This record gives sequence, structure tokens and C-alpha cells, in this order.
Amino acid sequence: MIKEAIFHKSDIPYAYPVNKDQLKIVLRTAVFDVDRVYILFKDRYDWLGKFKIKPMTLVHTNELFDYYETTLELNKRFLYFFYLVSETGEKLYYTEAGFFKKRPEDSFWGFFHYPYIREKDIFSPPDWANECIVYQIFPDRFNNGDRTNDPENVKPWGEKPTADSFFGGDLQGIIDKIDYLKELGINAIYLTPIFLSPSTHKYDTTDYYTIDPHFGDTEKAKELVRKCHDNGIKVIFDAVFNHCGYDFFAFQDVVKNGPKSKYWDWFNVYEWPIKTHPKPTYETFGENVWRMPKLMTKNPEVQKYLLEVAEYWIKEVDIDGWRLDVANEIDHHFWRKFREVVKNAKKDAIIVGEVWHDASPWLRGDQFDSVMNYPFRNAVVDFFAKRKISAVKFNTLITEQLMRHMDSVNRVMFNLIGSHDTERFLTLANGMVARMKLALVFQFTFVGVPYIYYGDEAGMVGGFDPDCRRCMIWEEEKQNKGLFEFYKKLIRIRKEHEELKYGNFTTLYAVGRVFAFRREYKGNSIVVIINNSSKEEVIFLEEAGGKEDILKMGELKRSGN
Amino acid sequence: MIKEAIFHKSDIPYAYPVNKDQLKIVLRTAVFDVDRVYILFKDRYDWLGKFKIKPMTLVHTNELFDYYETTLELNKRFLYFFYLVSETGEKLYYTEAGFFKKRPEDSFWGFFHYPYIREKDIFSPPDWANECIVYQIFPDRFNNGDRTNDPENVKPWGEKPTADSFFGGDLQGIIDKIDYLKELGINAIYLTPIFLSPSTHKYDTTDYYTIDPHFGDTEKAKELVRKCHDNGIKVIFDAVFNHCGYDFFAFQDVVKNGPKSKYWDWFNVYEWPIKTHPKPTYETFGENVWRMPKLMTKNPEVQKYLLEVAEYWIKEVDIDGWRLDVANEIDHHFWRKFREVVKNAKKDAIIVGEVWHDASPWLRGDQFDSVMNYPFRNAVVDFFAKRKISAVKFNTLITEQLMRHMDSVNRVMFNLIGSHDTERFLTLANGMVARMKLALVFQFTFVGVPYIYYGDEAGMVGGFDPDCRRCMIWEEEKQNKGLFEFYKKLIRIRKEHEELKYGNFTTLYAVGRVFAFRREYKGNSIVVIINNSSKEEVIFLEEAGGKEDILKMGELKRSGN
Ligand SMILES: [Ca+2]
Ligand SMILES: [Ca+2]
Repeated sequence: MIKEAIFHKSDIPYAYPVNKDQLKIVLRTAVFDVDRVYILFKDRYDWLGKFKIKPMTLVHTNELFDYYETTLELNKRFLYFFYLVSETGEKLYYTEAGFFKKRPEDSFWGFFHYPYIREKDIFSPPDWANECIVYQIFPDRFNNGDRTNDPENVKPWGEKPTADSFFGGDLQGIIDKIDYLKELGINAIYLTPIFLSPSTHKYDTTDYYTIDPHFGDTEKAKELVRKCHDNGIKVIFDAVFNHCGYDFFAFQDVVKNGPKSKYWDWFNVYEWPIKTHPKPTYETFGENVWRMPKLMTKNPEVQKYLLEVAEYWIKEVDIDGWRLDVANEIDHHFWRKFREVVKNAKKDAIIVGEVWHDASPWLRGDQFDSVMNYPFRNAVVDFFAKRKISAVKFNTLITEQLMRHMDSVNRVMFNLIGSHDTERFLTLANGMVARMKLALVFQFTFVGVPYIYYGDEAGMVGGFDPDCRRCMIWEEEKQNKGLFEFYKKLIRIRKEHEELKYGNFTTLYAVGRVFAFRREYKGNSIVVIINNSSKEEVIFLEEAGGKEDILKMGELKRSGN
Repeated sequence: MIKEAIFHKSDIPYAYPVNKDQLKIVLRTAVFDVDRVYILFKDRYDWLGKFKIKPMTLVHTNELFDYYETTLELNKRFLYFFYLVSETGEKLYYTEAGFFKKRPEDSFWGFFHYPYIREKDIFSPPDWANECIVYQIFPDRFNNGDRTNDPENVKPWGEKPTADSFFGGDLQGIIDKIDYLKELGINAIYLTPIFLSPSTHKYDTTDYYTIDPHFGDTEKAKELVRKCHDNGIKVIFDAVFNHCGYDFFAFQDVVKNGPKSKYWDWFNVYEWPIKTHPKPTYETFGENVWRMPKLMTKNPEVQKYLLEVAEYWIKEVDIDGWRLDVANEIDHHFWRKFREVVKNAKKDAIIVGEVWHDASPWLRGDQFDSVMNYPFRNAVVDFFAKRKISAVKFNTLITEQLMRHMDSVNRVMFNLIGSHDTERFLTLANGMVARMKLALVFQFTFVGVPYIYYGDEAGMVGGFDPDCRRCMIWEEEKQNKGLFEFYKKLIRIRKEHEELKYGNFTTLYAVGRVFAFRREYKGNSIVVIINNSSKEEVIFLEEAGGKEDILKMGELKRSGN
């Protein structure tokens, strides 16, 4: 056995409580290396008791690793070790103190050890998140519902956007399209920022307490949330707390009063007086973006200010959660406080971080409920849009991603295929709708929350920002109605099948460009078989026998390319 | 190359800031598998910039793994991947998205990524902890300084202890021995609990606000702390927050008033009315220890009560930190609040958890500064006292332990060789003082805080509790003066050499029973060579050339057994 590959740690994601009585345990081995894995366990205070033995289940196999799982039930307190047998008959015991050929009877302190299921530490995202289908809206570009609030320099709807163009979209525009969203079937919207700001994207906040008048006002925001709620749609706002805008009152005070400003230490000023050019003399977001001074969240006053903002909008307009901009450049310390404030203000509010990479440090239960799942997108783009990786590699990527997090986290990950910060999926797929449809089948049947970037359902295309932020296509003749209907069908299927929302995920087949998997929940299962190639493939899959063809994907057989 | 063994994750302990400008990076490979490892890195916002390349240093080698390290300096934001070359010429690139044969030029989002050095998240234990030598006192058994406060049923000093015997030790007794402690050279004491309780160990607290009258009172505690501080000795109290005693006011209120008590949900009562026998009808510590009802720290009132206790003793008697009893059965959530309260009350107070196993979930910077390092003890007992493992296995155990935590954590780990909860080291070594001396050489020259259990320095022996809690030997003729002098020498050497407190650790030799390593700091180094066998060994160690023999361990050559 390849000992170097065998891994367990009595911590997330290898050991964690799924509820107050059950502990999930995961063990990793090298792929195809081990034949049988058992866990030997008992109550850690049951000094004289015998260990129980339980076989573990192989749940994922990829290019490098096999993952075994089991769920244990005991009186909250666990002592355990593993017993592995290879096909050749080799036997190995694995403990926290390493490997043993013989069963280690007396190494109590060297065994693995989950001291206690601490109820307060059990991660539970809002229930509704498990059932969620999210729709992202970039407000200036979604729908102009009120021409009286348009910016002066508003451009004709549908013109090619630049970084600075305004198109007049607003909150009334979203309200006017609630029926459209309902027809599509989504049940949550996430709005990029809507607070006062000079820019079109509004990531440079001037005033965290004012809805940008080009979008509406607080009353309009309340109306939007109320009407969304009336229609079963949750509303998530964008918390841009890593940095503010140049015009933010505190920064302007510092610009004016220099080191004498009472806000001088809300920012990181390198050199007085403040200058914006040739390079800003203060820390900013990104690469010297002078319009976005970085906020010092280590400063308790800044913490207090931002936490009050977070609480205010939940209490004032009843939003259902926050998406956190540039979440990984703000300290964990702040996000832990943020979680307390948000959950106290609304128990089932959701917290979704923007983290483009492995987000596990933020998803241990103490900070976020979910993140925008860019690693998911990268795998889906490479497999379905670009066809540059094999089904085997795709399987490796997605199973490794699943094994980074607790199941409860995976079920609420915001699985996007594109956003306002990426090229649109259809563009990456060179306009080939069939490729996008296959990706959507995967997105809607995989573990996690399907996430639609506005307009994807209409067949919109667009390269990098600002091109991916084009005006929504409302002229029916320009919309891809087939794609819209396809989304509707997937949404309906997703809603109707608990397996897709709560089921476990098992890869059944990954050869060439064909990928098949099963979602199973409470004895029911759905099998998804995807031929991600241009030619017909014949595979034999016992698991698929007797299943109803709920997707009716005949059309893809013809148009695959 | 064994890909299954190659591991990095952009999180503790594989990536973490050492200060606001520097990021430590660790990569693991299979042992002897890779010849050279490079990291390619740049600022994550430097979109067009070229990657810098830096060789990584092999810092640990054990039975299974090699560990490579480097420290990067940039403008806080890192994008990086690894390049590995084996002796056979095989080349491999390693990214967050897996392995590549060719350099992955365009997989920006698949690279590893340390988004930002967030100052608030940098772990820094109190400075003094790095310089610390701790002495644990079990107050009833250390010294009786005031016969007027003795319990009624006090036993003659030195009688064999039972679980219930009282010997009259007290705070005055500790005060009277400050000169002794100063002569020994320690600079911190940790007292097992001293609050009001019916037991001799006092882990069943009756009143968290009252010093047990058999030990003294609050004024006496203040005097102890003040006199310790005058002599450069820090004082750590024991926070028993997992459970209270049966006589604790809140539990007694529940016993009396049942479900109508306002404290009913401070505990987990299975069945009313409360009964203690045949089995307690409420949750307790351990295996139905009815005298210790478990406190529900998920309850905000319980949190508030305990946090006020934590703050009170820091503010009232100026203690320098808390040792946390049964720390791993209390939720992380509570400990995070605890850290805030304690550090606000005293910036450089220390927080030391009792965790007998891998403690990494508590040592990420947000909870504890240190733990009682039982995995260290287990390795030292097995190698030095019992001689049941080889130097190779010993090296594996201690290097794996080091790689679980940040360097800053390792430097303040409370490295014990025994405590009130274990057999005494000398007993485990079958009374062979030479074996203990070798263990002490290791303890005082390894990374972390040397920790002395009262009486070990006098050559005390004792089996499991209560035998390990015998009365301190004060009759000079019964003390092992040689051992005392040996401790003094080790303490002096430790204090005089920054290498031992701050230096990195490199294993130089691990063959049979001979183990050698180097501690290096700012260009100076100390080499320690340990022959853990009964016969003379000759080894060639270039590193040792020209070193002064600071330990003068000739005596061990003669008495090794
Ligand atoms: Ca408008
Ligand atoms: Ca006394």
C-alpha cells in the first residue's frame, strides 16, 4: 500500500458532525491501492469497552485517490483507528501516530480522536439554500423600469458597453421582470452593488446607506424585496467591504484633513498628503485602483461601521443574505464577527463569499455558508465549453473539489458557469449552444446551487468585462427561446427531485468524453449520462437500467458539436 | 514522482504569514522522491508580470515524507505554483488544479493563491511565551505554608495519596517556595484549579469566584501573583469550563427547582427530576462522573458567565493566562469569544488548551496560543523511557508533529514529559535517571516550551493518578540533587541560547538509537547528539565539528542504560 497517500485528520473535511448524534469520517488512499477499509471505533471514555468495527464505503475514485466514507453514531465522543487490507492480502493499521502492521492495542493516545460533537460547531446553512436556484443581476444592464431616474449620459439599450457606460437599468426594472423570473423558475436573486457610487458597477461605494438614485431608493428596495418574497424569491445584496469608493465620507475626510482626520487609520496611507497620481499614496484594491481605497478591517471602528451596514439592510429592507466582494482579502476575524451579526439579525440569512480558489479556510462553519464556486466553473468550462480535458480529468477536478468541504457546504455552493467577472459561457463555447446545454445538464444535476448569470438563459454572449455585462436582451426575436425552455425544464426537474438537491454523488463512468454519475437520496436515484463528444458513443451502464428518461435529451444527440 | 504524496494547500500549516510582509510556504513530497523543488510566484494582481523562481529548502525528512519550505516577500498578495525535478530528470508542475508535465502558462485561476496577508489573522503568541520554562503545581501536594487553613482530615505529608486525600498544600506554600523555583530557574507556574471545590484536585468547581479556603483567599492569590511577578515568574490558572461541580449554584438551583429553574438550560438534563444514581440523569464530564455536570457553552448565558470569570481573575489578581481543562469538548465558538475577552483584558496573556491529540483545529490563531503537548510526551516516552521505538520512528513522530502547526505555534507548545494526568516519567523509565536525563536534554533543546511537572526535578516517581500526585519531597536527603542540578543546567543553557528558543530544527542523524539534530538561529547553531542506547556509538557528524561542548554530558556516557 502507498502509505504516503493514506490520509485522515480528525478535522474538517475528514471528520465532522453532520448533526448532534452523527460523525462523518473520511479516509483517503491511493487509487485502486486498497481493497477493503474498516474503521474501529468506540466511545473515548469507554476505557475497557471493545472497539466496534465497520466497513467504510468507497465514494470517489479519481486519477490519484480513492475516498472512503462512513457515518458513526455514538454518545458524541469518538476514539478510532483504521484497518486497511489490500488485494494482495497486505494489512495495515492507521492511527494518528502512524502505521502499524499489528493491531495497536495499547496506543490509546495515538489513536484518532473526535473529542465531542459540539453542537455549536455543527455547520448548518439556511435550509432554503439547499433548494436554491440563483439568478445574478447586474442592475444597470438588466432592465430599465423607470426612465426618470436614468443617468444623464445614458446609452441606448443594447449598445456595446464600455467600462463607463450607463444604460439606465434599475430596481423598478427588476420588479417589472419578477414574472419573467418566476416563469424561468429561479427562487433567489443576487444583485451586484446598488449603493451610491459614481461607477456603473458600483463597486466603489460612496455611501453604504443610500441606494444609488439611478437604481431607486430605500423604499424601492423594500418594494423589490417584498414583491420578490411574495413570489418566493430571496434577495441577496453585495457587501463591498474590502474597499470603499474615493468619495466615501471617511476617505474624503482623510483627503481633506490628512493625518488629523479622525478616520486616518481607517485606511493605509503610505505618504501624506493623499495623492491619486501617478500612483495612489494609499493602499487600494487590486493594482493601484485609486478609486477604491482599501478599508482597514483590523480597525475596530471600521469593523463596527461595516457590521452596522450589514445589519441595517437586513433589518431595514429584509434582504436574505450578503454576497461578499473580495472576501479573501479581508481577515477571518472580521468575517467571524460578520457571521454573528448577520445571523443574529436574520437566522436564515445566507453568507456567500467571493473566493476564486480553494475556499476551505472560509467554509469551516465559522464564516461563510457558501462561495461563488469558480473552481467548479473552471472545470466545467474546460470540459464542456473548451473540450480540453478528458472525462477522467474532469472527474478528478470535481471530486477533489467535493472532498475539500463538508457535504453540507457542497450542497449550497453557488455553482456558476459565468459571472460579471468572466467571459460568458456561450462565448467560451464558441457559440455552440449544444455544449452549453450539456454543461447546464451537469450544473443542474450536480451537488450545489445552480447559478444563472442574467441573460445566459437568453443565449447572450460576451467576452471579458465590460463585454460580459451587455444589456439584457428583451426582444423576444433575439432571445434564444430554446435555451430559455431548456433552463425552465432543468429548473423544474431540479425542483421536483430531492436526489438532485440532497443526494450523494457517485461517478459511474468516465471514459474518453463520456461521463456518467448517480445522485442518490433515500433509496431513489437519478443517473446522468453525458456524451461530451460529437459522435455517438455506446456504453453499458447497468445502473441506468429501468430509469425513466426525465431529461428527454434527444435533441442533443443531433446537435452535439 | 509519487504524485499521491505531493501536497500543498494555501492554508495553515502549508501557507501562512510570519509577519505582515512575509509568507511561509511548505510543500510535502514522498521521501527521497524529488531532487529539487522550486516555487514560481508573483503578485496576484501583476497580471502581465513574469513569475519569479526560487528554490525551496528541504527542512525535514522522515520515514514517509520530505518537507520543503521557503519564505516569500511581496506586496502581501501571492500567486504561485511549484516546479519539481526528480533525480531521474522527471519534471512536474504542481498547481491547485493538479499536476502538469508542461509549464501551465494560462491557468491563472488554477494556480495556488494566497490572496492577501491579513494583519489581523497573523498569529502571534505573547512574546514571553517563547522564553518560557513552565513549572506545573498541584497545590494540595506542593507545599503546606499555612497549617491554619488545612482541611480537617489532612493526611501526614508524604503519605501515599488516594483519590480523596488532602495534604494541606496551599498558596502560602507556593509563596514560601518562590526562592526554590527561582533557583531552579523556571519563569512561569501553572496551578491546577484553586477555586472552591470539595475535591482535592478541584476540577469540580463549586464557586468560580472564590479561592478554596484550604488554599487561601483572593488576597493571598494576589500576593502570590505579585511576588511571582517580582521574581520574574508568570502565573497561569486553570479554567475548568467544560463542567462545573455538583455544588455549583446554578446546578444546585436546577437540582432544587427542576425544569422551573432559570438555569435549567445551563445543563443537559435527560430526565427530571435530577438523580445522580444509579446513573446521572444529566450530561456529565467523562463516563457518568455525577460530580461534574457538563456546562452547555452553546447557551449565551453560560458563555457570558464563564467569560466574566475569565476576565475577572485577570483583572482582579493579574494572572498571566489560562490553561483550559478538557478544552476540546467545548465548542470552537466559545473559545474564539474567550480569546477576545482574555486578550482584551491582558494583551499578552497566554491561552493553553488541554488537548491530548492533534490540536491543530485549535491552533489556527483564533483560539489557543498553545496546548499541553501530549503527542510530544508520547514520542519522548516511547523513545527515551521505554526505548520501544527507533530513532527513525522518533524522528518521524516529532517532525510530523512540527509540520502540523505554524512555527510560531511550535515555539510556544507546552512540551511536557508528564503531568498530574499521567504516570511520572521516571516511573515509566523504570527509575533509570540516565534515561530521564536524555529525555530532558531533548526536551530543553527541542522547539517549544520546556515544562516541568512539580517534583520531577527532585526525582519523584509515581504511577497513574492518584499516585502521580504524591506530596512534593522537600527533605533534601530524599531529593535527587543530581537531577535538580541537571535541570538547573539545562534551564540555564536554554535561557542563554536564542537558538534553542527561536532556532529552526533540523534532524542530522537518526540511526539505531542515535539521534542528532541542529537548532539554528541568525547564523549560530547548536548541535545535539543523543545516544539513546547502553553502548558506546561512534558516528561521524561534520556539523558537530568545532562546537563547544556546552552540556558536558560525560556522566551520561557512564550511566546510560
Ligand atoms: Ca432607469
Ligand atoms: Ca495548609
